[in-house]
Amino acid sequence: MKNISLMGASGSIGLQTLDVIRENPSEFKLVAVSVGRNIEKLKDIIQEFAPALVSVQEEHDAVQLQREFGQKVKVYHGNEGLENVSTYSEAEIVLNAVIGSVGLSPTLKAIQAGKTIALANKETLVTAGHIVMNEAKTHGVSILPVDSEHSAIYQCLQGEKASQIERLIVTASGGSFRDNTRDDLKNVTVEQALNHPNWSMGAKITIDSATMMNKGLEVIEAHWLFDIPYDKIDVLLHRESVIHSMIEFQDSSVMAQLGTPDMRVPIQYALTYPDRMPLVHSRRLKLEEFGTLHFEKMDFKRFKCLDFAYHAGKMGGSVPTVLNAANEVAVAAFLQNKITFLTIEDLIEKALEKHSVVHAPSLGDIHEIDLDTRNYVKSLL
Amino acid sequence: MKNISLMGASGSIGLQTLDVIRENPSEFKLVAVSVGRNIEKLKDIIQEFAPALVSVQEEHDAVQLQREFGQKVKVYHGNEGLENVSTYSEAEIVLNAVIGSVGLSPTLKAIQAGKTIALANKETLVTAGHIVMNEAKTHGVSILPVDSEHSAIYQCLQGEKASQIERLIVTASGGSFRDNTRDDLKNVTVEQALNHPNWSMGAKITIDSATMMNKGLEVIEAHWLFDIPYDKIDVLLHRESVIHSMIEFQDSSVMAQLGTPDMRVPIQYALTYPDRMPLVHSRRLKLEEFGTLHFEKMDFKRFKCLDFAYHAGKMGGSVPTVLNAANEVAVAAFLQNKITFLTIEDLIEKALEKHSVVHAPSLGDIHEIDLDTRNYVKSLL
Repeated sequence: MKNISLMGASGSIGLQTLDVIRENPSEFKLVAVSVGRNIEKLKDIIQEFAPALVSVQEEHDAVQLQREFGQKVKVYHGNEGLENVSTYSEAEIVLNAVIGSVGLSPTLKAIQAGKTIALANKETLVTAGHIVMNEAKTHGVSILPVDSEHSAIYQCLQGEKASQIERLIVTASGGSFRDNTRDDLKNVTVEQALNHPNWSMGAKITIDSATMMNKGLEVIEAHWLFDIPYDKIDVLLHRESVIHSMIEFQDSSVMAQLGTPDMRVPIQYALTYPDRMPLVHSRRLKLEEFGTLHFEKMDFKRFKCLDFAYHAGKMGGSVPTVLNAANEVAVAAFLQNKITFLTIEDLIEKALEKHSVVHAPSLGDIHEIDLDTRNYVKSLL
Repeated sequence: MKNISLMGASGSIGLQTLDVIRENPSEFKLVAVSVGRNIEKLKDIIQEFAPALVSVQEEHDAVQLQREFGQKVKVYHGNEGLENVSTYSEAEIVLNAVIGSVGLSPTLKAIQAGKTIALANKETLVTAGHIVMNEAKTHGVSILPVDSEHSAIYQCLQGEKASQIERLIVTASGGSFRDNTRDDLKNVTVEQALNHPNWSMGAKITIDSATMMNKGLEVIEAHWLFDIPYDKIDVLLHRESVIHSMIEFQDSSVMAQLGTPDMRVPIQYALTYPDRMPLVHSRRLKLEEFGTLHFEKMDFKRFKCLDFAYHAGKMGGSVPTVLNAANEVAVAAFLQNKITFLTIEDLIEKALEKHSVVHAPSLGDIHEIDLDTRNYVKSLL
């Protein structure tokens, strides 16, 4: 039995994590959980899983909930509440599925508390990879990726030596607009952008897939997770999303992990690691039903955000924080129909051009640069 | 530095093993070697690699060689000579690349002598898998596959638990006649059959690829190597031979090993295992250059030999010996233009029908049934 703290339970990854826990009551117990503002969902979770400790974003929600559930559960709120969830003494694994940079600080606290981290929150590594990986090393803590691409690479790395990696090959479906030219992109709508061909995901990540920023953030995460230089990380366009990613080793042998598009696979793998166990209601991969798999060279001129991400990753320091913050504000503005799809790229480019790199930024630096970037991009809207 | 005994040095796998040893003089030393009748090649090998011990098939060749090289090398011959090579005290790894059932007995002796076995000889496991794997277990010896498919599965299994395998997926290129109907096969020539689309291999195995018997023998080998029941071993038609084979695990995750068609990769992997090292003059896999990979369901009516092999494997005991012996005689007859391509299947089917299974056959039983089958099939020619 593994005790699990789940941060960000009401999002797409959070809900699928609850599915995995629900289907395996003899393997997993949910002991602590956080949501943002989805209080109704949290009530259901408390009823079903009976966690000892929960946290919400707002104080008034916490007060109300505590009144409603009384002795049954301890309710916290805000950043301190998130840290209570991530460091809860009964938890062995902390699955971080919160969205945005709010996930960083509680992850560091969890590492310092010796928890195994199952990481679905991109910002943690994108903005503070140097701090997080160093802390994990210091405390002898494993960072298990939950993203399908990083989970694939992690699975390919089992029984292998990282020193014998020649390159990582991260696959990309191409997103909603993979068959469109840049000209076509001028007038695309939010609805079109949200129509991802393979995966059903949240809005932010679906837009990031369409701009290819999602893949760019994944390249930066892969750099930190696997300690691989950027010139040894390739992105390959693979429209079926069947091969989730690959490692080429020094002997030219390539290991790959494949599957149907089901995020419960990498979620469950992170929870059962180093073991595997049957996935309930899984759909088996039958390559003969696909018939063909396609692979294309990635076009960095077509997908400028991917180019920005490599640039930001190679520059290092505070630049990925700027990339991420500018992207968050721009995508939110696009989702609110305030800007066009291609303006997302323009805003990120402007933010990157304006910023002067801070090397080895502290958490304070990262927080400040994140805020400054958001304010700057908002001022351009 | 690993000391290597190489059985069957002048065949396709043997020569590529010599390539790997040649390119890595600080890693590998060839200490003992056998060939059949290719004495000129053996002379070159002795000059280049200076093994301490060699063996040839015929006594008169051995006498001649010993006279020519004198003190430089000890020359043996026949089955005893092969066993001297396979059990040579200085060798750590025995790479068995001999063709045919002559490879079985020296492999068993090598296992008993505690050598790590790198196995390219199919008959060893097809005819005596129950004996060989049991001996390997008793003596704590590793059997490392050299075949590209089994090496792929072995690589996918690193860091995993065999108990968590759901099924093995062995890929098949389809061989020379994959796009032909059974009607088309009636009048195909030896030259057409020898024209394999992806791999450059010896004549026997190229014909076995065209009949799909090669894949059938590989299924039986996989059964023994990985201790997996036949109903959990699938064969998938994959014409590009880029994915060399796969494992589906219980959680529906599929691990695959990919590469360009270069037998030096699995050969070197077996020699460096559990490590990897750069492969000299390797061609890197670039999936974007392939563009498309194809997968089709295997047609057991089109490829009857595959059906025979599953049948023989499931029957077990002496039946795979009959399958293999009948196939060897039939393929040899086809290569000599004595029978048509489709008669290969007919002869195997007749041999299988005539045979009464012997359960858990001894080495003596296997030898006798092998001979009886060969005589019977010859009598049908």
